[in-house]
Amino acid sequence: MFENIRNREFYPQWNEKPPANGTYRSIFKWGASDKFKHPNRRLFRMIKQSFSMTDADFQKRLKEGNEPVKCDIPIKLSSDQISTFKNIAGEVNVSTDDYQRVKYSNGKTMEEAMLLRNQLVGNVADVVVHPRSIEEIGAIVIYCNEQKIPIYVYGGGSSVNFGVQCTKGGVSLVMQTHINNVVELNETNQTITVEAGIMGPDYEKVLNEAPLRFNSQYSYTCGHFPQSFEYSSVGGWVSTWGSGQQSSYYGDACDLVVSQEYVTPKGRLRTLDYPATATGPKLNDIMKGAEGAFGVLVRVTMKIFRHMPQNRRRFAFIFPDWISAVNAAREISQGQFGMPSVFRISDAEESDVALKLYGVEGSILDHAIKLRGFKPNKRCLCIGHTEGESNFSANVNKKVDAICKQNRGMFLTAIPVKNWEHGRFNDPYLREDLNDYGIMIDTLESGVTWDNIHNLHQGVRAFIKKRSKTICMTHASHFYPQGTNLYFIFIAKMSDINEYRAFQRGVIDNIVKFGGSLSHHHGVGKMIAPWMERHLGTQQMDVLRALKQHFDPNGIMNPGGTMGLEP
Amino acid sequence: MFENIRNREFYPQWNEKPPANGTYRSIFKWGASDKFKHPNRRLFRMIKQSFSMTDADFQKRLKEGNEPVKCDIPIKLSSDQISTFKNIAGEVNVSTDDYQRVKYSNGKTMEEAMLLRNQLVGNVADVVVHPRSIEEIGAIVIYCNEQKIPIYVYGGGSSVNFGVQCTKGGVSLVMQTHINNVVELNETNQTITVEAGIMGPDYEKVLNEAPLRFNSQYSYTCGHFPQSFEYSSVGGWVSTWGSGQQSSYYGDACDLVVSQEYVTPKGRLRTLDYPATATGPKLNDIMKGAEGAFGVLVRVTMKIFRHMPQNRRRFAFIFPDWISAVNAAREISQGQFGMPSVFRISDAEESDVALKLYGVEGSILDHAIKLRGFKPNKRCLCIGHTEGESNFSANVNKKVDAICKQNRGMFLTAIPVKNWEHGRFNDPYLREDLNDYGIMIDTLESGVTWDNIHNLHQGVRAFIKKRSKTICMTHASHFYPQGTNLYFIFIAKMSDINEYRAFQRGVIDNIVKFGGSLSHHHGVGKMIAPWMERHLGTQQMDVLRALKQHFDPNGIMNPGGTMGLEP
Repeated sequence: MFENIRNREFYPQWNEKPPANGTYRSIFKWGASDKFKHPNRRLFRMIKQSFSMTDADFQKRLKEGNEPVKCDIPIKLSSDQISTFKNIAGEVNVSTDDYQRVKYSNGKTMEEAMLLRNQLVGNVADVVVHPRSIEEIGAIVIYCNEQKIPIYVYGGGSSVNFGVQCTKGGVSLVMQTHINNVVELNETNQTITVEAGIMGPDYEKVLNEAPLRFNSQYSYTCGHFPQSFEYSSVGGWVSTWGSGQQSSYYGDACDLVVSQEYVTPKGRLRTLDYPATATGPKLNDIMKGAEGAFGVLVRVTMKIFRHMPQNRRRFAFIFPDWISAVNAAREISQGQFGMPSVFRISDAEESDVALKLYGVEGSILDHAIKLRGFKPNKRCLCIGHTEGESNFSANVNKKVDAICKQNRGMFLTAIPVKNWEHGRFNDPYLREDLNDYGIMIDTLESGVTWDNIHNLHQGVRAFIKKRSKTICMTHASHFYPQGTNLYFIFIAKMSDINEYRAFQRGVIDNIVKFGGSLSHHHGVGKMIAPWMERHLGTQQMDVLRALKQHFDPNGIMNPGGTMGLEP
Repeated sequence: MFENIRNREFYPQWNEKPPANGTYRSIFKWGASDKFKHPNRRLFRMIKQSFSMTDADFQKRLKEGNEPVKCDIPIKLSSDQISTFKNIAGEVNVSTDDYQRVKYSNGKTMEEAMLLRNQLVGNVADVVVHPRSIEEIGAIVIYCNEQKIPIYVYGGGSSVNFGVQCTKGGVSLVMQTHINNVVELNETNQTITVEAGIMGPDYEKVLNEAPLRFNSQYSYTCGHFPQSFEYSSVGGWVSTWGSGQQSSYYGDACDLVVSQEYVTPKGRLRTLDYPATATGPKLNDIMKGAEGAFGVLVRVTMKIFRHMPQNRRRFAFIFPDWISAVNAAREISQGQFGMPSVFRISDAEESDVALKLYGVEGSILDHAIKLRGFKPNKRCLCIGHTEGESNFSANVNKKVDAICKQNRGMFLTAIPVKNWEHGRFNDPYLREDLNDYGIMIDTLESGVTWDNIHNLHQGVRAFIKKRSKTICMTHASHFYPQGTNLYFIFIAKMSDINEYRAFQRGVIDNIVKFGGSLSHHHGVGKMIAPWMERHLGTQQMDVLRALKQHFDPNGIMNPGGTMGLEP
């Protein structure tokens, strides 16, 4: 506000209108329809400069997708088939209208947003079904298997790799509408059993309020907070092998899942919920991250954790360079004192942006950083916090502090991480604003061993930066003794879909070429599936295909390319 | 010694002669041929009393298996086939002699020891092969697959469930002889790559001496110390999903394995070694604990840990009863301050024996326990130690102390755990002494959730104790937030093999009946395999069978009942 009055410089009129019901924009817009996060003035200035844009480029928004959704793709199912679904799930829970068909066949990729903005619709379900019970899902799977009708499972819909695209038509099975109940909190075992469609915030609320709701001794937390937390489902977390922003301490979604229940074309299956067994390869493992290709995940039992936010200790450091930041992060990950919960290091390009976003630029801290001689385009930011039992958390914080300082890190107070926390789930809202003015923003991520982190970072960056006027920001945000992940964010003035596709595919190519894993926590879907064979090799792919053949001999579960399982 | 002079009471002449080469005893005797651990006088007295035995019963040892091994089972392979193995692995590495055939077809079950003691031989290999390289293993697997010759993999040979029994003859492939090299220590990634046949002590030595051998910055430890540590192989740990005595801190063998390399009838396979990926179900998981049924595990890359024995803190507590001990253990496991490394709680019957064995009985501590009013046959012992970074270890120790005291535990100094550590790998030596006088000792173990621990403990104990004059000692020794394991040790005067079999099978029945997992860390083998279908259900077994069919369509890998995979 103050900045607005003082500054007479131009600042765009970002779209602040909730998209009307039934429009394309209401489908591709991230999150709540009435919630926004606009680029702040510093970021706006940087964008103009990076892409040689002028104020004139921000006078008028381009195609915004405010038109009502139309879908001309014919429904391939017969009216008998549609009636059968209505008989199973109830008339009101079965829809063939254009809007539902498009909405429940799209995830949140840049590509889908670009297409929908241009009123381009493809790969849609014939029918959308909101089953009311697991029994109904059982009946639907049996019927679809008989009739060879494809089934696509829609959890929260936040897939960024065409995970929910209904490539072969058929049914989009929406889990979040009714399959979202809490089955049981088991405080003795420190587990909760829920239906797969329960959404992140509802799930966490139940756990936080456990003493009230279940008369439990403690309040709990789920420990899994991906950026998509507010708009993703617990079943989706497990199905895509997701990792939350606090995974370095809590583990990823598949570390947290104790047992799973599936409805598959081959029958129903509930894995055992022992804390450990030695009875051969575990079905709970074999089903992890199967992305709906083996069956419908209907229920999960998850580990939970005591909720002790009072023990959180926050830290931020700035390092003179990326190598120092990586060295500190590796030492922390291998130090055997436990791990911080949130923990992120940003490369030089991202750090300069982060300092703008997290309230450091222009502050007294900024002054101190300059005095220390840490240079823009070199210095690297690290933020994080610790959790767990009080002394444990304090000791991790103390060790992080010592190791960062040994690696020439400078303490930056808790301000940057507090600012990060404030907006931790909101960055995806920025995309619509940028897209409105023809600016593409996208991300790809990869798991990497410590001995290959610099090679991967440099290799992928070199590819991205070869394109002029392209921002490439990278961070590592999930840490293990054996390695970490690299998360690449690339931004450019780009609205041609073919140019975008070629460029984005080029980034994936280079991730594989420079030895990163094909995905660290976004999953595979149908988007990066074409690289699976090259990445895993035919021997490993054949095993996944054998499992697919076992569970789904008619190929009805998420068909059309998921994980590269089809011939 | 002092005790010997003072006490004129009878004490048996335990066998102290290393078994002669080529004898049955040299096969079934645990560990080093010249190493022994005899029951001490207190234990001896207890045994006599428990089984109403007299000194006269210990005057003369029964069948000791000192006869040279004979094997009348005809070799089913042709001389051409044997020649082919000699061409591949070299004349000297291929044997059809009676001794090798029997030795490399037997593990360390009570049942095998009973049979060998009686010169009864069954389920033996036709030929024993000691391959010199992974390439040779490749050639052997291809040839055996063509000729439909069964292959059994022999690592350390410590299986306690007929894991190495060559039920259908064929080849016993011995890994420990040559397939035992260190491939690479990767200090940056904190991993080591070794061939699967390397034995525990060699493996740990390489890691402890890493600064000398690899010029590494730190000395390392493997973190995996099962009771069989000295006579088991790294490949065996992973193949059977083993857990070490320090698993509560380090994790089990399959938590430690980063990647695996297999030779299967379907081809060679090396899983990827990323610290984390989201590219569908992971082959590294799918192959865990496969017990040689999918292929030959030839190489593994394992996580390693900084070796910091100086940070170890030891503790022991005695609780008034089992419920208090379990409550304390659960609170420790769920407290989010990290876990102790060694951590064990013994039930009342085991505690009374442990106090004899670990130097408490008759000491000043014993006096203090009595003063406190803790009663024999009620009081329960807890021992353990903490590890990791110095402050971390100290804090875990401090929290354990506080929680034990909150649960009415009384601190017992570090003496009991030091005494336990001293003999931690030696208890299996006791078996031969007991068996020499017709006393059977055996163990079975199970994974269990916290909410079922008392039910399982009481149910299985009730079955065992229904038999008069039978000792049943139980402990929990591997801890998780969601549960633990129960390890049942049962001892009785019993030398009839059929009586033993019926009784032992009855214990397994009751483990399953009272809701324990079929195995926590011993694996399945061919012994408990008949319970797999009942335990996992047909749906889950069908998935394992589909994997078996994929890797091994001719059924040559560890056939004859392993994990219940065959029809």
